[in-house]
Amino acid sequence: MFLRNAWYVVACDHEVGRSLLARTICGEPIVLFRTQDGQPAALENRCCHRNAPLSAGKLIDDEVQCGYHGLVFNRQGRCVLIPSQTAIPPGAEIRAFPAVERHRWIWVWTGDPARADETLIPDLHWQGDPGWHNVGGYFHAKANYQALIDIQLDNTHAQYVHPTTLANVGAVRATPRVKREADAIRVERLMPDSDPQPLYVRASGFKDARADVWVNWVYKPPTVVAFDTGIAERGSGVFEGNRSRAFTFHNVHAITPENERVSHYFWMSSRSFKVGDEAANRIHEDIRITFREDLEMCEAQQACIDAMPGRPTIDINADNPTIQARNLLARMIEAERAAG
Amino acid sequence: MFLRNAWYVVACDHEVGRSLLARTICGEPIVLFRTQDGQPAALENRCCHRNAPLSAGKLIDDEVQCGYHGLVFNRQGRCVLIPSQTAIPPGAEIRAFPAVERHRWIWVWTGDPARADETLIPDLHWQGDPGWHNVGGYFHAKANYQALIDIQLDNTHAQYVHPTTLANVGAVRATPRVKREADAIRVERLMPDSDPQPLYVRASGFKDARADVWVNWVYKPPTVVAFDTGIAERGSGVFEGNRSRAFTFHNVHAITPENERVSHYFWMSSRSFKVGDEAANRIHEDIRITFREDLEMCEAQQACIDAMPGRPTIDINADNPTIQARNLLARMIEAERAAG
Amino acid sequence: MFLRNAWYVVACDHEVGRSLLARTICGEPIVLFRTQDGQPAALENRCCHRNAPLSAGKLIDDEVQCGYHGLVFNRQGRCVLIPSQTAIPPGAEIRAFPAVERHRWIWVWTGDPARADETLIPDLHWQGDPGWHNVGGYFHAKANYQALIDIQLDNTHAQYVHPTTLANVGAVRATPRVKREADAIRVERLMPDSDPQPLYVRASGFKDARADVWVNWVYKPPTVVAFDTGIAERGSGVFEGNRSRAFTFHNVHAITPENERVSHYFWMSSRSFKVGDEAANRIHEDIRITFREDLEMCEAQQACIDAMPGRPTIDINADNPTIQARNLLARMIEAERAAG
Repeated sequence: MFLRNAWYVVACDHEVGRSLLARTICGEPIVLFRTQDGQPAALENRCCHRNAPLSAGKLIDDEVQCGYHGLVFNRQGRCVLIPSQTAIPPGAEIRAFPAVERHRWIWVWTGDPARADETLIPDLHWQGDPGWHNVGGYFHAKANYQALIDIQLDNTHAQYVHPTTLANVGAVRATPRVKREADAIRVERLMPDSDPQPLYVRASGFKDARADVWVNWVYKPPTVVAFDTGIAERGSGVFEGNRSRAFTFHNVHAITPENERVSHYFWMSSRSFKVGDEAANRIHEDIRITFREDLEMCEAQQACIDAMPGRPTIDINADNPTIQARNLLARMIEAERAAG
Repeated sequence: MFLRNAWYVVACDHEVGRSLLARTICGEPIVLFRTQDGQPAALENRCCHRNAPLSAGKLIDDEVQCGYHGLVFNRQGRCVLIPSQTAIPPGAEIRAFPAVERHRWIWVWTGDPARADETLIPDLHWQGDPGWHNVGGYFHAKANYQALIDIQLDNTHAQYVHPTTLANVGAVRATPRVKREADAIRVERLMPDSDPQPLYVRASGFKDARADVWVNWVYKPPTVVAFDTGIAERGSGVFEGNRSRAFTFHNVHAITPENERVSHYFWMSSRSFKVGDEAANRIHEDIRITFREDLEMCEAQQACIDAMPGRPTIDINADNPTIQARNLLARMIEAERAAG
Repeated sequence: MFLRNAWYVVACDHEVGRSLLARTICGEPIVLFRTQDGQPAALENRCCHRNAPLSAGKLIDDEVQCGYHGLVFNRQGRCVLIPSQTAIPPGAEIRAFPAVERHRWIWVWTGDPARADETLIPDLHWQGDPGWHNVGGYFHAKANYQALIDIQLDNTHAQYVHPTTLANVGAVRATPRVKREADAIRVERLMPDSDPQPLYVRASGFKDARADVWVNWVYKPPTVVAFDTGIAERGSGVFEGNRSRAFTFHNVHAITPENERVSHYFWMSSRSFKVGDEAANRIHEDIRITFREDLEMCEAQQACIDAMPGRPTIDINADNPTIQARNLLARMIEAERAAG
């Protein structure tokens, strides 16, 4: 069960071009391409004649030609040519999905096209902003998308899952401030005089053994988690809004279900310091390791659930944000279902 | 659902010898071998004692010894020896299938043995005739057998699926003459003054840019499609039956279901020109490429159907021959089912 | 359906140490380790918080720390620490399995811990006894455990399955003496003046072409088959209990179900002759080949059953011991089920 009237990240910007890319999201096989003017386009990846995947065909101008009998579909999913006859029969059409390029990613709307409002795409304007250094990646994850979101929203796992990068004793016991909004969950964790995360230290060259640390995030259902996080000298006023002496990261996770057990995990890490400094790019590998550790834990967890489905579990206090996030999404899916 | 009272190609002639070959057709695991006098034999590939596959045993004279406890079965499927005792208990038998070698292939009858009439095997006498040069092959195809037959019967796909070998603009719009018979569908496509297929040109050394082209075929249910096809100089009388200046191919496709999603695809291409000419054999690779392209399209189509089962499709005019062929086979299966 | 109140071999002694080993038996994923005093321990391989496999965590002293949120479980399966809070909620526990090291193997009790009586572990005291030379091995078998037990209990297959090692014409027709006990089946096969098995000849250096041969075994449900077997000079009194001039092997097979179609096959072969003789160790490879041949036959049989489920089979006289063994286990499982 997925939220249908929603934007999902379907690909990185550089993956989609003047050839045909096949990708399945929310159980829906899609073929992606760019039109001649550079706009992304997304169609059902299936010819309505004999079920050949259109991704095995050809992109001709702004239309897709099926590789089997040569039927041609336009960007709206309408069949516009059947080479062996002149008439186009009724029903000769496939589904077209609204598609938008935004913040270095391609987004697809899987629900009613009439409701595809681009303003609903989360604001991640620093992705692609020259004032920030961005590094992004993609994992094809053998795990449920909500489990992959859970681990991002969890405040206490870094100490165990990320021992060499994000481990932070302070975070395990810090109490998050959780703020529920109609369409988002926001969490603020401020840790004055705390042990700074090894990844932040290596990236910034920070020298002190203690720091003011913050890990804030917002969850935008169904699939985006955007972190605002970093470290600063103790007492430099970072908790009062003064970031002039802070090292700030924005880490965004967009985790799109392929199906209930497999996900497309897109991430982008952006920093606003040392933007032109090549040496600072050693952080890239640290980031990749960190997010891969999340992935590996969730894949192990998925295998464990598959082997022992339905066994009883307990909740702990620290689950509060992840439970709220799951409840919010469940309410949205239920509302959509109730509305038919 | 397969037609049971029918001959299916189960192997190439050279595959079956004095050892045991396992192959599953129509969901039925079979063990194949030749008796000492060279005749093919086919048994259920399962010992009736403890379900060991007989193909893991030994061929001894004209009998098969199970590799587990040594039970021996004769060509009729009767157990004739249990090494550890003298009596053969009732029920000690397995299924035996009528098997015939014909036209370079081994054919097995999967239905009632009493009805296994060898005259029902299609006449493909040129396969093995020294007046013809034959080249054959086999693919293990991850696709439904009817889909693999469809692509053979289709008149319009060559332009898209076979761009380097059989592409032929004329064929896309040519109207086939379809003739329904009680147990076959015949199609004639005559294309005077047309663009000759690249494969035919390379094979024959034909110089003219235009040719009289024909692509005729007969479908013999459940699984054989035999093509009579070629090119000739324009106006040389080939459409009136004069083939003295024509280059003729007979291409036969025998597509046997392993199950509903996997097939054994046997093919043989025969030519009646340049029979002793080694240089002309470069055509072999062209043929293999062409038939592999069919295979790849059908495997992609099968994967697409598996991912999106039950979605609506449309028919086009050019589907007429494939629809007639499917209807004919469906009627035969239904008649068999109704007869019990 | 497995017998629950029983000991199963879960690992070789050397496999379990001061790290975490994951293994599934009887459908139950288990994590294994040794405590600091060297005792084996076995827990459900699943954190009761968010279903992470504990084997992806850490062994700390005698406790297991989950690698996701750091929950710690003691050897009894009780959660003793949740790093992010002070209280342990009710239900914070997982299953603990009685585990014992005995006879070079680690045994786990899968049923009611209160009934885990170590005296029920079969006596295999020669395994690890310095008066015997032991060689052991393990196969991960794609076959049902009862089928793998059947082939051990079968008296007639060696001639066909083990042509180069245990083939023995005498055994095919020898009548076994079968003795049913309340919790075991015992079989004695004495073959005076018989053809000695090639493996025994090569191992012992025995010169005569004929020998007094014995192959005795006991089946201890659910999964242990222990052989006492060997050869001696004809008339040397071996059948009257005089083994002073005999070459004796004890071969033990412990075949633990992973699930209904996959098994853990542990074996150990022990000899009481040439114990310090390195040259005699060439027998190791003979033994491994032999037991692998059993494995391969059972895997072929499993694939055959999967392809043709439910087809009729016959029994032969030689099946008597395997049928009695299956009946004994079936009665025990039924009794356990009836008792709730």
